[in-house]
Amino acid sequence: MAIPSRSAFVRIDLAERSYDIAVGCGLLSSPDDVICAPSTAQALIVTNTTVAPLYADALREVLLGHHAIVRTVVLPDGEVHKDWHTLNLIFDALLGHAFDRKSVLYALGGGVIGDMTGFAAACYMRGVSYVQVPTTLLAQVDSSVGGKTAVNHPAGKNMIGAFHQPLRVIADLDTLDTLPAREISAGLAEVIKYGPIADMAFLAWIEDHVDALRARDKVALAHAVARSCELKAAVVGQDERESNLRAILNFGHTFAHAIEAGLGFGEWLHGEAVGCGMVMAAALSARCGRIDPAFVPRLERIIERAGLPTRGPQLGAQRYLDLMRVDKKAEAGRIRFVLIDGPGRAGLFPVDDALVAEVIEAHTA
Amino acid sequence: MAIPSRSAFVRIDLAERSYDIAVGCGLLSSPDDVICAPSTAQALIVTNTTVAPLYADALREVLLGHHAIVRTVVLPDGEVHKDWHTLNLIFDALLGHAFDRKSVLYALGGGVIGDMTGFAAACYMRGVSYVQVPTTLLAQVDSSVGGKTAVNHPAGKNMIGAFHQPLRVIADLDTLDTLPAREISAGLAEVIKYGPIADMAFLAWIEDHVDALRARDKVALAHAVARSCELKAAVVGQDERESNLRAILNFGHTFAHAIEAGLGFGEWLHGEAVGCGMVMAAALSARCGRIDPAFVPRLERIIERAGLPTRGPQLGAQRYLDLMRVDKKAEAGRIRFVLIDGPGRAGLFPVDDALVAEVIEAHTA
Repeated sequence: MAIPSRSAFVRIDLAERSYDIAVGCGLLSSPDDVICAPSTAQALIVTNTTVAPLYADALREVLLGHHAIVRTVVLPDGEVHKDWHTLNLIFDALLGHAFDRKSVLYALGGGVIGDMTGFAAACYMRGVSYVQVPTTLLAQVDSSVGGKTAVNHPAGKNMIGAFHQPLRVIADLDTLDTLPAREISAGLAEVIKYGPIADMAFLAWIEDHVDALRARDKVALAHAVARSCELKAAVVGQDERESNLRAILNFGHTFAHAIEAGLGFGEWLHGEAVGCGMVMAAALSARCGRIDPAFVPRLERIIERAGLPTRGPQLGAQRYLDLMRVDKKAEAGRIRFVLIDGPGRAGLFPVDDALVAEVIEAHTA
Repeated sequence: MAIPSRSAFVRIDLAERSYDIAVGCGLLSSPDDVICAPSTAQALIVTNTTVAPLYADALREVLLGHHAIVRTVVLPDGEVHKDWHTLNLIFDALLGHAFDRKSVLYALGGGVIGDMTGFAAACYMRGVSYVQVPTTLLAQVDSSVGGKTAVNHPAGKNMIGAFHQPLRVIADLDTLDTLPAREISAGLAEVIKYGPIADMAFLAWIEDHVDALRARDKVALAHAVARSCELKAAVVGQDERESNLRAILNFGHTFAHAIEAGLGFGEWLHGEAVGCGMVMAAALSARCGRIDPAFVPRLERIIERAGLPTRGPQLGAQRYLDLMRVDKKAEAGRIRFVLIDGPGRAGLFPVDDALVAEVIEAHTA
């Protein structure tokens, strides 16, 4: 398989809100791949202190060939800053430069930048356009696709947000060259996720290529990113606003959110918590009799080989349960879990606290 | 014309987001008029320190006959509190009571409560339901209808918000009995607005009934509220997200926002600023040759009889222009005004600053 300098676009099919995901190398300096908004729009690049010195100039240069006005706002880096205070820095920049309702925002960075920029775009003057330019593996395979945007609340992750689809997603694989190894591993958690819930052949492919992916082999990465986006696109296209099906994309995330909230946001990377959360969710699926128990150690081994933790922190089962009860999938105080329900298939199920507590006890360090 | 204890519903036609506006007396204590959300939903009444002692118990009692869980959060009263900090009190209440994605919020109060509750509902877990229970004339005839929600930013009014339609609007005319006279007048500004932009026969009716309206004659109020909602519904039904036509509902509002921002939010009531802003906008329409200049003193007289100011504060024309440039209707730094364009018709037009400055000079005290 060759590395295309510009891959075929993956299409997200949402009627008038449809858009393309470009996956390939060298995209950031390619006007054909970047330009998708009207030239008359005022453009704001939203990035952070880590990504700005690496890629903001390249993006800015391409955009200046198209938009008359291009401004940049640089936010502090990290999940701990994914709050209203930081969001307001984007509003301050937009209003300070008198940006109007036809403006377009470019989210250059990881999942935090993408979520906050998307939410700012959803709310500014009740909605302006934005483009996702994800520079982390996690953002490229998951968070930049599908239009979920949010900030955190002290009582829960992503509690305040909006569904707001971008104009385009530009996943330039070259930006992964500067990513710390720990974040490559975190991104792989969301890649692995698509296997048990939707495509066991893809999981087998990951088993064969996990070392190449960790070594940032571009051919392997191109396939992992494109296939992840295809699988996500298929789910989001059927259930944009998460009435039901879309929730399966949260496999492992109910446990993960409890880990992140319990340790304090930013202590573990989101992908690390998801890695560990998937082991717990698989164990719970087996405990509920929905999958062959032999699948649990198989998944655990893949997660471990991806460089991810497979055991959760010892918060105590009750603390986990309390934190999970504010999960967005809960209904009337009853936590609902995404469980694997046969190979390559998942669903949303309520589970008795006692059973969940058993799994937590068995899978915390 | 008799006062129906429960009027026929006015329908807002927005496909799957369609809803009804109930207009009449005694609605707050009538389950048939109030109940529109599933009984399984957790309910949160959002109100303020002024309205809570008057109507929260009545609404709570009706809701307790339907929802198992009914909570109340009481916000400080006033436009000055229409900000993120106060909005967060709603999120704190929702998360503190572990409210889930099926929850429903009831906005019991004026425009500020309605706008903030609607925006909180739009953002909480990326969107929950809400019901508008407007208790001011301004909210009943305008802000509760059409799904515009927002909070203010120090640099501009309603800059951060969302389009989010309610499940129902419940306009109980009895709640107007406790409204200060100044707020009845402020509400009449938005009633008068519908005349020049959409229905000159309605304007003539207002000329005949302005004294009855100020005296809170329920028959007159029922017609004013229902007709205002009908006219707004017709516009919103054609252009929910304000691509173009919907902007005519902002007649007088560009000047009004400059007055409110220039004096500090809350100094003048919104309706007072709109009353004065409509005189300026009518004068500008005449100055641009779009209407008979004789209409300006006619409109000014109605606004004066409604108990509203007809001259703006002396901020200086340049300050007005600077404040108007951040208006949401501006494009690429050019302010666009809603002008009357013949009797009962309006449109959106860019106007030279010099002409605008002349009108401001002529209509400030």
